[in-house]
Amino acid sequence: MRVSQLFAPTLRETPAEAEVISHQLMLRAGFIRKAAGGIYSYLPLAWRVLKKIEAIVREEMAAKGGQELAMPIIQPAEMWQETGRWSVYGDEMFRLKDRHNRNFCLGPTHEELITTLVRGDVRSYRQLPLLLYQIQNKYRDEIRPRFGLMRGREFIMKDLYSFDRDEAGLDESYNKMYDAYSRIFTRCGLSFRAVEADSGAIGGSGSHEFMVIADSGEAGIVYCGGCEYAANVEKAELHPISAAAEESMPLTEKDTPDTKTIAALSQFLGVSPEKTIKTLAYSTDKGEIVLALVRGDHEVNEIKLLNKVGCLHLEMANEEAIASVVGSKAGYIGPVGLADKKDIIIVADATVMNMHNAVCGANKPDAHYINVNPGRDFKASIVTDIRLIQESDPCPRCGAPIKTARGIEVGQVFKLFTKYSTALQTTFIDDDGKEKPMVMGCYGIGVSRTMAAAIEQNYDQNGIIWPVPIAPFHAVVVPVSTKDQLQMALAEKIYGELNASGVEAVLDDRNERPGVKFKDADLIGYPVKVTVGPKAISDNLIEVKVRRTGETLYFGPEEYVAGIKTLLAKL
Amino acid sequence: MRVSQLFAPTLRETPAEAEVISHQLMLRAGFIRKAAGGIYSYLPLAWRVLKKIEAIVREEMAAKGGQELAMPIIQPAEMWQETGRWSVYGDEMFRLKDRHNRNFCLGPTHEELITTLVRGDVRSYRQLPLLLYQIQNKYRDEIRPRFGLMRGREFIMKDLYSFDRDEAGLDESYNKMYDAYSRIFTRCGLSFRAVEADSGAIGGSGSHEFMVIADSGEAGIVYCGGCEYAANVEKAELHPISAAAEESMPLTEKDTPDTKTIAALSQFLGVSPEKTIKTLAYSTDKGEIVLALVRGDHEVNEIKLLNKVGCLHLEMANEEAIASVVGSKAGYIGPVGLADKKDIIIVADATVMNMHNAVCGANKPDAHYINVNPGRDFKASIVTDIRLIQESDPCPRCGAPIKTARGIEVGQVFKLFTKYSTALQTTFIDDDGKEKPMVMGCYGIGVSRTMAAAIEQNYDQNGIIWPVPIAPFHAVVVPVSTKDQLQMALAEKIYGELNASGVEAVLDDRNERPGVKFKDADLIGYPVKVTVGPKAISDNLIEVKVRRTGETLYFGPEEYVAGIKTLLAKL
Repeated sequence: MRVSQLFAPTLRETPAEAEVISHQLMLRAGFIRKAAGGIYSYLPLAWRVLKKIEAIVREEMAAKGGQELAMPIIQPAEMWQETGRWSVYGDEMFRLKDRHNRNFCLGPTHEELITTLVRGDVRSYRQLPLLLYQIQNKYRDEIRPRFGLMRGREFIMKDLYSFDRDEAGLDESYNKMYDAYSRIFTRCGLSFRAVEADSGAIGGSGSHEFMVIADSGEAGIVYCGGCEYAANVEKAELHPISAAAEESMPLTEKDTPDTKTIAALSQFLGVSPEKTIKTLAYSTDKGEIVLALVRGDHEVNEIKLLNKVGCLHLEMANEEAIASVVGSKAGYIGPVGLADKKDIIIVADATVMNMHNAVCGANKPDAHYINVNPGRDFKASIVTDIRLIQESDPCPRCGAPIKTARGIEVGQVFKLFTKYSTALQTTFIDDDGKEKPMVMGCYGIGVSRTMAAAIEQNYDQNGIIWPVPIAPFHAVVVPVSTKDQLQMALAEKIYGELNASGVEAVLDDRNERPGVKFKDADLIGYPVKVTVGPKAISDNLIEVKVRRTGETLYFGPEEYVAGIKTLLAKL
Repeated sequence: MRVSQLFAPTLRETPAEAEVISHQLMLRAGFIRKAAGGIYSYLPLAWRVLKKIEAIVREEMAAKGGQELAMPIIQPAEMWQETGRWSVYGDEMFRLKDRHNRNFCLGPTHEELITTLVRGDVRSYRQLPLLLYQIQNKYRDEIRPRFGLMRGREFIMKDLYSFDRDEAGLDESYNKMYDAYSRIFTRCGLSFRAVEADSGAIGGSGSHEFMVIADSGEAGIVYCGGCEYAANVEKAELHPISAAAEESMPLTEKDTPDTKTIAALSQFLGVSPEKTIKTLAYSTDKGEIVLALVRGDHEVNEIKLLNKVGCLHLEMANEEAIASVVGSKAGYIGPVGLADKKDIIIVADATVMNMHNAVCGANKPDAHYINVNPGRDFKASIVTDIRLIQESDPCPRCGAPIKTARGIEVGQVFKLFTKYSTALQTTFIDDDGKEKPMVMGCYGIGVSRTMAAAIEQNYDQNGIIWPVPIAPFHAVVVPVSTKDQLQMALAEKIYGELNASGVEAVLDDRNERPGVKFKDADLIGYPVKVTVGPKAISDNLIEVKVRRTGETLYFGPEEYVAGIKTLLAKL
């Protein structure tokens, strides 16, 4: 490809709308253009990157026995109503009616469709397992689409669904996909971690997320330096912390004016935050109030709390709700005396129940109890782990200090068990002659998001630094002066020889100043740049600059192709 | 791929819903499943066919300098409102609103989007020409989706758009695409014709359709046995026919009871239909009445008429309209005495104006004029070619008799000129420093429709007969008995060797009766079937049956791979 003909319009200025680096660089380097909020055109360079990611995905899916198909993007409402998700999805689902007034949606995912599809055509255990996947646009009407391709409303997904006879089969399919995903992100040249993820109501170790490590990541992850443990912060388990034994003192109410925060309270009473109990009030979708108790220096993990309470939604309770149910206001709430109250669920982090002579709110303004002894002074409806993990917390597996990082979720593997096959009557006859629901899993990769994540992890102040396996091209050949016939002839020769040898090269034949061409080359992020200037002619040496390391090498005309191939293989 | 693991559920019965052969066979052979009216899932075998067609398309697009990109499927309304097509498209366009109540559509085509995209980033003649294309789902809310993939509501299209400096450039781009399309359908192994197509208001030779020849085709096409001329019947031009000179006789009104048809009239008056003038009344979208005149033995081509009148819609006028404007009823209408009447446009086929002493309606019940001499007795607002071509009509180029055929439109190339660039202000600065609108063309291929058309052209009573280049697999290896270890071992060996040598083979390792496996093989339409039965073991000869010809060949174990490759190359 000649750059003079390539539709890759670069911009000098960073568009004001772009908040994150991948969005800025993809706009500036001519990879994407916005059509509407969260909806983009992929220009030819981006399309090449996406096709490379897709090719890697396809190879690894096929290696595990995955069969590619394509389901409709536009899906009839009926099957979504059968599973109940037509209402669950709410405003996030793009909905439309056809000319006959029938309801459709634009698929945010395809569990309903694939389960219905398989239901009609698979009857026997002999037809299982099945691993079926597709790569296509998905739709989610985000309330605030942003960050370019990181949180779009139209985006490219690979979604595979597994159908097995039993849970042992599901485990096998799950492990295959876990392995395939590890291989895919490795082959894409990305630094990533597979972390244990929240699997919602299903619980257990039923889900992993694949996170590309990047400071700009939306997700917090934790990992252990001592063992293999890694998890999404939302999911990370914690063992309860015990406290040194103490003699129980009598429960006493204290005036504690202006002590709405743990910090103020600790200072006022002269106790450390570890001796206080933090009580947060939430409202559930069922109209109950949940009081969540954690140690004063700890934070509540709301995802864990949601799962443990078993409700659909949870939000901080407002002042009226707190006043009417607890009879207090935020800052002075506590569990004492509320155990038998209707519509109140007290959920205590297990660490709280180990505390002695602690401090908590007295459910009246400017008052706290001291010498609170859990068990003696209050009971909890649920005692469990609801704590948010923090840097240096002990690893739940080996006890070594936990480390934290930021990640961009690019893939997720998930055990669905029989949730959809039961809801949609997708059964098979097993070899014992019995009809059973198929045991399912689903496995997604955000293909367009992976492209963005690759940039978030690989850039510098001059632009993108593509990992070689997913670079739109491997090399750019830049003649310093297109008017110099000797330079152009040599550049053409190099361009031809590189492509003939399997190095995907572009020739920047534009009649532009060399500075402009060098800047564009760095911005677009070709792994290797070959400069053909006066010295190439006079000294018969070809200058090769490596985008990632900045190093410059010189090769003779007989060695440069092999030299570049070696460089690319090492990158 | 082992058939035991392949998701290709075949059906014994032809589903009642399927009207055309491609629809029936794709359902029966496990290629597609319906999700909603006109909306299908493509199962793995269909997906392989589609990927092969797409690969051919991509290679030929790249060979002409086409660059692939991907625009959104979901498009904001504003740009469609700018060109006026938001209203023109009517109910055929799927429309939806996002959560912020903004209007979007599902793209039926992408002229608006690509023109807007190029507008923002191309400013100079040096950036032209540009050939940009994509392959993606398109949407059209057909009032009666039917015929499976032939007329779906969600379908796969390749659409390329060309941007040039001037009409000479457009001609070049157009010819490139015409050539690429010819190569694509040839490479797909299809029998097709490129025919001149109606290009609407633009006129001229601005469009060709690529038609796969098949009796089930929805489109009528004509072609000349003597020269290269070929056209859609809607478009086919005709030269006026002259009539032998006659002395003009005086215009005379005759009572002609019960002569509403040309046949009845001819018989009643004892004149041949060639001596009569047929007058048809149409209503336009502007409220006018169009009287279309053709010779009694000719038919009106309504597409030509529409273009010549220059209106958007045309429909047969109802009785009230005819009575109020013409003062007559259908069957007795004629042009005499109406030339100056308001809201009447008389459009005469040029052949009519050559007639002498003809017969036409007298605009009163049961009455006709005889001895009508056009020019003397009536004038026409427009004299032109509005006749529908018929078998044996003289070729407009060489005069040889025209032949007719049916075709399935699988591609269209179309000169847009500056229609969209003007409407959307997509201009560039030419080398003379002047700002000019870009000159555009658009070029579509129905990818999923091409798959269906290939079947309409290639099948027999047993199933599909895939052309080799787009067959889902090249060969099926069928062990007669999977329980016979020698047979299975040999079948496995053949399966392995074929795939290793580049022949895409499946192994039908299902524990089914041989008859079931043979039937499925024929139904799915693998070009070649290798049967491994007792004779293969005892005689050391491998049986190869060719799906298209039905011939059976026997090869030794050292020759069969080369033998099959030769067979495939010849098919």
